[in-house]
Amino acid sequence: MANIRVAIVGYGNLGRSVEKLIGLQPDMTLAGVFSRRDSLDTLDPDTPVLPVADFAAHTGLFDVAVLCLGSATDIPEQAPEFIRHANTVDTYDNHRDVPRHRAEMDKVARENGTVAVVSTGWDPGMFSLNRTIGQALLPGGSQNTFWGPGLSQGHSDALRRIAGVHKAVQYTIPSPDALDAARRGEAGGLTGKQTHLRRCYIVCDEADRERIENEIRTMPDYFVGYEVEVNFIDEATFDAEHTGMPHGGHVITAGDTGGYTQAIEYTLELERNPDFTGAVALAYARAAHRLREAGQSGAYTVLEVAPYLISPDSLDELIARDV
Amino acid sequence: MANIRVAIVGYGNLGRSVEKLIGLQPDMTLAGVFSRRDSLDTLDPDTPVLPVADFAAHTGLFDVAVLCLGSATDIPEQAPEFIRHANTVDTYDNHRDVPRHRAEMDKVARENGTVAVVSTGWDPGMFSLNRTIGQALLPGGSQNTFWGPGLSQGHSDALRRIAGVHKAVQYTIPSPDALDAARRGEAGGLTGKQTHLRRCYIVCDEADRERIENEIRTMPDYFVGYEVEVNFIDEATFDAEHTGMPHGGHVITAGDTGGYTQAIEYTLELERNPDFTGAVALAYARAAHRLREAGQSGAYTVLEVAPYLISPDSLDELIARDV
Repeated sequence: MANIRVAIVGYGNLGRSVEKLIGLQPDMTLAGVFSRRDSLDTLDPDTPVLPVADFAAHTGLFDVAVLCLGSATDIPEQAPEFIRHANTVDTYDNHRDVPRHRAEMDKVARENGTVAVVSTGWDPGMFSLNRTIGQALLPGGSQNTFWGPGLSQGHSDALRRIAGVHKAVQYTIPSPDALDAARRGEAGGLTGKQTHLRRCYIVCDEADRERIENEIRTMPDYFVGYEVEVNFIDEATFDAEHTGMPHGGHVITAGDTGGYTQAIEYTLELERNPDFTGAVALAYARAAHRLREAGQSGAYTVLEVAPYLISPDSLDELIARDV
Repeated sequence: MANIRVAIVGYGNLGRSVEKLIGLQPDMTLAGVFSRRDSLDTLDPDTPVLPVADFAAHTGLFDVAVLCLGSATDIPEQAPEFIRHANTVDTYDNHRDVPRHRAEMDKVARENGTVAVVSTGWDPGMFSLNRTIGQALLPGGSQNTFWGPGLSQGHSDALRRIAGVHKAVQYTIPSPDALDAARRGEAGGLTGKQTHLRRCYIVCDEADRERIENEIRTMPDYFVGYEVEVNFIDEATFDAEHTGMPHGGHVITAGDTGGYTQAIEYTLELERNPDFTGAVALAYARAAHRLREAGQSGAYTVLEVAPYLISPDSLDELIARDV
């Protein structure tokens, strides 16, 4: 089996997930981590830690680099420089800017004979794939994307700013009624406030509960207008059950085929969001390497990659096992 | 927008579904129906009905032919002759024979400069795609395919052979407990009898109910060993609710990413089985035409087709809308 040498660029939550996941792949090894920091607490103390400024000098060490960088400024600023020197995969998630990002990466990749797969992960990424396929199968049908149950960092921060709140998290949850309407193809006109509810878990003194619940329910922008559920729990329960990073969601497409409703639903239920984002990025890192080996260059979204290219198994094995 | 001229070969349930669905596509027209019969009751009386024996003489009329033929003998015997003359899509569903079928179609297609997409539909087809992608994202994870709720023709026939049964249908239904176990990644060792239950709807005289239920529950091969649910209903309810062809199912992949469970689930809920099979075949007919236009030849499974090729929308539109 091939050995694909993978480099990680950036060592936050996503970088650490990718590091862990490389060990689960039958055909990959970790070549090193590029970072701005001099030393990192890597899983394997022998993993090379390299200065990100020296990326271009080390491209002989790896086949593809997974860019585990922020979407706000890092990816748009730095990815076009990395793709000059090596194959890359990113999880750029600024949906509105993806066409520009893909075009820029495509231009530089073609000039330099490299391959980029852009905006992998789950949304964009797997959800994009299911939106395109769903609408292709049921043209004229209705389609809804739901997010959650998932931890919302911004809303959790807002809860923690309320006086008397010791600990708090907020999960965004698809409304069960809206999910059912989407499955019947009847959720076309619903807004985000109608399709999602906000569930809060709060640790505070018992005397503060009524006031805190009232402050949550009347907080503009964050909670007003949403169905809000407030749960008060003790600190031990909070620490045991609410320190993870769960997320997920649904892409639901429903269409009418001349008097009959056909519903397609893709669901993710993720105990750890960055782990799954990293898993998708790694699978497309495999595709980037293979496309380059096949003589291709340029930038690809997940819509443009033949699915068998992301599997560690051979096409013949896949046809015999999965088709 | 392109106009793809589609021919239908065979005019059973699937052929009639494809005929209806072509009218819902923004970029396709029906060029004609090839049949062994001289005349057909087509939706549009002006649709050309052509002798299937003259297929080769009429290839100038269409861009791609959807082979709506049986998998038992028609597809393996006839598809290699059709692909000599024109692009084809089929829904060949003999899973174990797909590698041989693809190889044969690939050889003839390459010799003749045509494109075949083989074994489309939903299983094989969409379920194959989700099996491959699920295992690529979560290598080492567990994966289960569940079928139903769906009408089983063979089991319905067995019920109708019981003395005193006026009307009967049997639906195969995934066991809720097994679905939950699969979502937790704990359904690896379960057999088909443990993961599916059999739900029967029977119309009979009230005096016969106890005997008939006993005959069902003790019928070897068909029902013994399964969880069986027997419902007695009146004829009006039967005619109103149980004459359709519903089907569907789930592909569930669950994997551990170092201490965290990640679950991927793809669900189909189909009110009319042949309509959805036909919808998938038509989307891949679009891909077959485009691959040929791009100068390709050979046979492809759904695993080998870049997803954007099945959409009527342009790649730029898809990237802006779905990614």
